[in-house]
Amino acid sequence: MRLSEFFLPVLRETPNEAQIASHRFMLRAGMIRQSSAGIYSWLPLGYRVLKKIEAIVRDEQNRAGAHEVLMPTIQPAELWRESGRYDDYGKEMLRIKDRHGREMLYGPTNEEQITEIFRAAAKSYRDVPKLLYHIQWKFRDEVRPRFGIMRGREFLMKDCYSFDLDFESSKRAYNKMFVAYLKTFERMGLKAIPMAADTGPIGGDLSHEFIILADTGESEVFCHRDLMQMAVPQGVDYRADLQPIVDEWTSVYAAADEMHDPATCPVAEADLVSQRGIEVGHIFHFGSKYSKPMGLSVTGPDGVDTDVIMGSYGVGVSRLVGGIIEASHDDDGIIWPDSVAPFHVGIVNLKAGDADCDSMCADLEQKFRNAGLDVLVDDTGERAGAKFATMDLIGLPWQVVVGPRGLKDGQVEVKRRSEGERMALTPNAALDRVVSGTMLDPATTGLFPG
Amino acid sequence: MRLSEFFLPVLRETPNEAQIASHRFMLRAGMIRQSSAGIYSWLPLGYRVLKKIEAIVRDEQNRAGAHEVLMPTIQPAELWRESGRYDDYGKEMLRIKDRHGREMLYGPTNEEQITEIFRAAAKSYRDVPKLLYHIQWKFRDEVRPRFGIMRGREFLMKDCYSFDLDFESSKRAYNKMFVAYLKTFERMGLKAIPMAADTGPIGGDLSHEFIILADTGESEVFCHRDLMQMAVPQGVDYRADLQPIVDEWTSVYAAADEMHDPATCPVAEADLVSQRGIEVGHIFHFGSKYSKPMGLSVTGPDGVDTDVIMGSYGVGVSRLVGGIIEASHDDDGIIWPDSVAPFHVGIVNLKAGDADCDSMCADLEQKFRNAGLDVLVDDTGERAGAKFATMDLIGLPWQVVVGPRGLKDGQVEVKRRSEGERMALTPNAALDRVVSGTMLDPATTGLFPG
Repeated sequence: MRLSEFFLPVLRETPNEAQIASHRFMLRAGMIRQSSAGIYSWLPLGYRVLKKIEAIVRDEQNRAGAHEVLMPTIQPAELWRESGRYDDYGKEMLRIKDRHGREMLYGPTNEEQITEIFRAAAKSYRDVPKLLYHIQWKFRDEVRPRFGIMRGREFLMKDCYSFDLDFESSKRAYNKMFVAYLKTFERMGLKAIPMAADTGPIGGDLSHEFIILADTGESEVFCHRDLMQMAVPQGVDYRADLQPIVDEWTSVYAAADEMHDPATCPVAEADLVSQRGIEVGHIFHFGSKYSKPMGLSVTGPDGVDTDVIMGSYGVGVSRLVGGIIEASHDDDGIIWPDSVAPFHVGIVNLKAGDADCDSMCADLEQKFRNAGLDVLVDDTGERAGAKFATMDLIGLPWQVVVGPRGLKDGQVEVKRRSEGERMALTPNAALDRVVSGTMLDPATTGLFPG
Repeated sequence: MRLSEFFLPVLRETPNEAQIASHRFMLRAGMIRQSSAGIYSWLPLGYRVLKKIEAIVRDEQNRAGAHEVLMPTIQPAELWRESGRYDDYGKEMLRIKDRHGREMLYGPTNEEQITEIFRAAAKSYRDVPKLLYHIQWKFRDEVRPRFGIMRGREFLMKDCYSFDLDFESSKRAYNKMFVAYLKTFERMGLKAIPMAADTGPIGGDLSHEFIILADTGESEVFCHRDLMQMAVPQGVDYRADLQPIVDEWTSVYAAADEMHDPATCPVAEADLVSQRGIEVGHIFHFGSKYSKPMGLSVTGPDGVDTDVIMGSYGVGVSRLVGGIIEASHDDDGIIWPDSVAPFHVGIVNLKAGDADCDSMCADLEQKFRNAGLDVLVDDTGERAGAKFATMDLIGLPWQVVVGPRGLKDGQVEVKRRSEGERMALTPNAALDRVVSGTMLDPATTGLFPG
């Protein structure tokens, strides 16, 4: 991609309204633009990150055996009356009347809707177990939207729902999602910690939040320091028994603010880590909370009807864009992990229009692309300082600087954004260094050809 | 994919409310489920088709040099007051008040919003030309939603917007989209005919509709019979001059109902084709209709500010699912074109549980997948007749039937859905026949791994 053709409206000044790093950098890097309070447009750079995060979330859901559907954003009120949540939900629910005066709402979540879908289809125990998910825009009419897309009103969420015959089977679904979440966040370069959590308005009796640690986190979290070092399992077979993995992760103390009581906390003070955290996922087992009032039952092998046992499993897809930035930035801008970087490499042409510089940039661009990397070439007429500042701001993992002076010595400069230092290398060595130093994720490679 | 694990709630009976083939088959094949009038959930089979269509639309937009963004569904009313359309739009616009009483709306289209985005970013002639598009859910509160997703209220649309310094440049953008549309619809196996059209509520002075022919079409269309045979250009270079292609396609008479006047029609009656058609795309050049009232101007090379010249270009992504079915089905069900088929091959295991049948199905599945094909294996305990009926209904391009009797003779049966006849072949010959007979589209291959 050539920057001269791309749409990257970078801001030199920091916008006043942005209180936290992710909001500030997303606005400055031209990733988003506010439409109204808590509602944003995603510009090309931000869109690429959003789509890569979505692709990783989707890939891990598919691996776990979940099937993708897509429910609409606008739901009928009567669905929520069936579960009793229409009145409970309060002002965060965006309520709408259509032209015929029918009561509708912009879905803040989809338990009722998926229960209705499954109710129409499922007849017997042969129709379960099943995991269905979708990735769709939701709306919560926050009273004070803030922190950019981190606490916006219109947001993208992955929500998965499990349908099982009994608790044992339902626990297996819960475990699949528990492990899928560990892997999902790790693939984005995040350290996410599962914590016993309150079930809140979703209801239910078993729940974990997945929290990433960052100083700007919305709440205090507490855990045993051992949890910080725990390794996410590799090569998971989702058809195998995942209970040992879940046991390992839940046997060590971790709790969000509202679940932590210093008086009863079993961890010695020296071993207790207390930090700010950002919730990026939340899983719930809620049994028959929706299936019973909404009449979702199946005939068991014994011929007796039984309420379907359910759970729901959410990931804040758009929120993760901000979460990753909060966890990975410096004063100059964002530092993207390879798997979700909008481009893996930025090539800075210090003298656009110079035949040697132009052809070296084109050559490197092609070779990087052949290796599966996404490349942005700054071929604009900006001065060098501004180009470097933009590259640092937008946070591509690698920068390759091509200038006439270096080329005379047969060299280009390579900078790893996370480390900062520039090395002079031959173009081939630069290529090698960048390609071998980039961890491509299968779900995001090739997502943006050209 | 194993059918025993997939979520495919097929209906044996035809739902009463479905008046046209696409609505009927989409409900029966478990592709969609109605949520409320004109609002649908996409179940896994329908979702796969929707995503494949979206992928082709996206790929051709990218090839044409358009950049993808994503604007929110909920827009502030003040944006539409700037253009003067807030009052004009009438009851089709879903109007919403948020918890603070602010007037919002669910976007039926995005001219105002993209103009605001570009206005904030563009300063000089160097910032144009630019093509920006998004693929997002829209809402039009139809007074009588019908025909399933063909005339729904919540629908998925690709809308692209062009920004240029003058008419000449803007015409180049228009031509890119004109040609991109020819190619987009052809890649889906559709014959789409561009027709001079009324500009309607978008406004402007140059407009074409892209119409596919189907008996259930919503309007009458008229064209010279030569147009039916015209070939879509292959290997288009979008940076080249596309005017000759556009001239070729627009020099032959074609007009939608409201533009056709028998009194002035230049085509002899014998050469005039009159058929029902379905609009699947619409492109508009509207100059400064939005840029002038909204103050989107750039400084020209001469230092003088000038209104940016714009156009907009829409494709009905969700509507295309229905359009393709209307254009390609028989009494038994859907007949998917290869490029958008939810799966390319359905393998029917006539005796699930039989070791030979199971292993042959698994072997074929793996080999088809290695060749890049999407495969659905019916491994359920249903009787053969029901399995065949389901395969015909869901319309996969190829069926491969594996049964114990055939296997004894070293044979399986292959059926091309569009032709109907079954051939007995060795497994290797069947593999060969199906793989070589399938036209994979680069944008949809590998979209659904596993």
